[in-house]
Amino acid sequence: MGKVLIIGAGGVGTVVAHKVAQNPDVFTEIMIASRTKSKCDAVVKAIGNPNIKTAQVDADNVDELVALFNSFKPEIVINVALPYQDLTIMEACLKTGVNYLDTANYEPKDVAHFEYSWQWAYKQRFEEAGLTAILGCGFDPGVSGVYTAYAAKHHFDEIQYLDIVDCNAGNHHKAFATNFNPEINIREITQNGRYYENGQWVTTKPLEIHKDLTYPNIGPRDSYLLYHEELESLVKNFPTIKRARFWMTFGQEYLTHLRVIQNIGMARIDEVDYNGVKIVPLQFLKAVLPNPQDLGENYEGETSIGCRIRGLKDGKERTYYVYNNCSHQAAYKETGMQGVSYTTGVPAMIGAMMFLKGIWKKPGVWNVEEFDPDPFMEQLNKQGLPWHEVIDGDLEL
Amino acid sequence: MGKVLIIGAGGVGTVVAHKVAQNPDVFTEIMIASRTKSKCDAVVKAIGNPNIKTAQVDADNVDELVALFNSFKPEIVINVALPYQDLTIMEACLKTGVNYLDTANYEPKDVAHFEYSWQWAYKQRFEEAGLTAILGCGFDPGVSGVYTAYAAKHHFDEIQYLDIVDCNAGNHHKAFATNFNPEINIREITQNGRYYENGQWVTTKPLEIHKDLTYPNIGPRDSYLLYHEELESLVKNFPTIKRARFWMTFGQEYLTHLRVIQNIGMARIDEVDYNGVKIVPLQFLKAVLPNPQDLGENYEGETSIGCRIRGLKDGKERTYYVYNNCSHQAAYKETGMQGVSYTTGVPAMIGAMMFLKGIWKKPGVWNVEEFDPDPFMEQLNKQGLPWHEVIDGDLEL
Repeated sequence: MGKVLIIGAGGVGTVVAHKVAQNPDVFTEIMIASRTKSKCDAVVKAIGNPNIKTAQVDADNVDELVALFNSFKPEIVINVALPYQDLTIMEACLKTGVNYLDTANYEPKDVAHFEYSWQWAYKQRFEEAGLTAILGCGFDPGVSGVYTAYAAKHHFDEIQYLDIVDCNAGNHHKAFATNFNPEINIREITQNGRYYENGQWVTTKPLEIHKDLTYPNIGPRDSYLLYHEELESLVKNFPTIKRARFWMTFGQEYLTHLRVIQNIGMARIDEVDYNGVKIVPLQFLKAVLPNPQDLGENYEGETSIGCRIRGLKDGKERTYYVYNNCSHQAAYKETGMQGVSYTTGVPAMIGAMMFLKGIWKKPGVWNVEEFDPDPFMEQLNKQGLPWHEVIDGDLEL
Repeated sequence: MGKVLIIGAGGVGTVVAHKVAQNPDVFTEIMIASRTKSKCDAVVKAIGNPNIKTAQVDADNVDELVALFNSFKPEIVINVALPYQDLTIMEACLKTGVNYLDTANYEPKDVAHFEYSWQWAYKQRFEEAGLTAILGCGFDPGVSGVYTAYAAKHHFDEIQYLDIVDCNAGNHHKAFATNFNPEINIREITQNGRYYENGQWVTTKPLEIHKDLTYPNIGPRDSYLLYHEELESLVKNFPTIKRARFWMTFGQEYLTHLRVIQNIGMARIDEVDYNGVKIVPLQFLKAVLPNPQDLGENYEGETSIGCRIRGLKDGKERTYYVYNNCSHQAAYKETGMQGVSYTTGVPAMIGAMMFLKGIWKKPGVWNVEEFDPDPFMEQLNKQGLPWHEVIDGDLEL
């Protein structure tokens, strides 16, 4: 049905490339581009499909992107580069008439600041260009929004309480490692917590609120209230929501490492002068830590991510829990990447598929919950992220 | 009595400069040199004595050192630069006829390896040149050796068991900081433990052996067996010693920080490639951590360092504990530096004083315990590091 360009050849990009290649009826031509072309070539070699093209591109550079888009002429670009690069890629899409999809909202490099406003500001320009931009189409954000839209469509007249719960019960057998880009990981966790209640945002200290939640096939895990970007769009798109929160599990040892990383100044995102070279400590730390892409081989256990929702149906209170469990080893066997990359990359591919099939195609800038969830939910079951639901169970929340 | 050149304008160098300036009858002319001349000028300004000269010198560079020694013509150089630079400074001393004193043994930059063999190898050359080199004349090594020599001279016929105990019960009110050059501090602690027993060296895992020891005016503190360089010379110079150990206190929080620093790769002393620049992670960490020299102002509490000795006197078993307690605030008020710098810098000045007075002057390369301890012990009481002794008390060891 159409040509796709994947930007980014990290863990998520590798998964997207594998899944796109598994669906040749939809993705008729594929290119992978990143700053380092050899990484793209390695992905193509791992997939074993010589028809996949590769290219070098600096995603910070609009002109380079425009030149690449004009030469390959994709219908849609799947942006799985760094979130710093969302805006340059969106600019290039507008200049060249290419549709857009990403998995994480734009944030500037020098402040930890997760919000959609920068990208929502492109709405009118994408509308006028007749182009579709789909924001935040990974797992969370992404599937978390689709789950919520699906719940709203089929199980509730009014969603009142939404809790997104994200558990990684995997073990990578390293003293310390982050599961995706450690720079993003640490920035996300060290910021203040934030949740939505009765029309207002409530701010907490970092990791101030936590409780044991029980995850299917895993058991109880200490879960911490974080701010996560999809809360911003979900409370806007589902205005009956009284309270929306996001929870993520962390082990004590992981948190101890994070606390020390902050105490010693290695989580800083401003530049320090080191013998005349300007270096951001967190970026240097990233160069020293294990590469998240290399964790797959010995990664055991599962992730479990879902939405726990309370609200009204036919005048009665209802609870609904919809979730996916993903095995790190199964993900690794299929794509060479662990479950955290897998759960982000598969939905990105499905989102692009929805666009190319014409189901999620409307000019403008959109979050995933603004589209019909049903065909996406159907593909989740087919593409490796099957979901399960529990109606009127105990949400613990 | 003579001209002195201080190399190094860090915390210890600042203390040495203050103490040297307080003894103008011994030190008739003073110069401070370091890689950064402005640091030397700041020390001179703090002391308020415009007669102290300053100079720029790269202590890694023998030719630069030779030129400086030839122009200033010191009788002795007090080396309080980095231990990597001991050998270049000793070479320059031999080329120019200058006597030498340092506070920490030479170690190469790229391996953590504390031993005297490199410097002892200079013995014959210093002898033939008629020059004196005094090694390890800080507190530990330094006063720890003088204490041992004093005990051997006055209190024992035969020293059998020696435990050097080093407690820092200070609080600098920072989440994490090291008390002296963090690079040396971390290298020292992350190496294997080692002690001497019955003619052999016994190796332990890093921080494997620890126990509560009670320090005067402080109380019990968890104390860890480390290898420390003076053990090497002390068991050689006091061959009746059956067992020699070194203990240092650490808080749990400090050790947690160290463990994480290792886990995340920031204690590495090999070079990593960061965007084409070769960087040693531990050196980068040093640039991000608080500067030990800046800890003084809010530093509370005391250090307590001493020797606990068991042996025979007149055919009977005797115990002897000799120690100094040093207040961080008192050290800061006098010199602008905290107690860890103070306890190292004061003995370096006294050692140079012993040399210029002709008391510790004999051609060759020597450890402090090879000289008469009595005049040094007398000066400790006069120069700010008074000592106390307990005879036949409970050593806990």
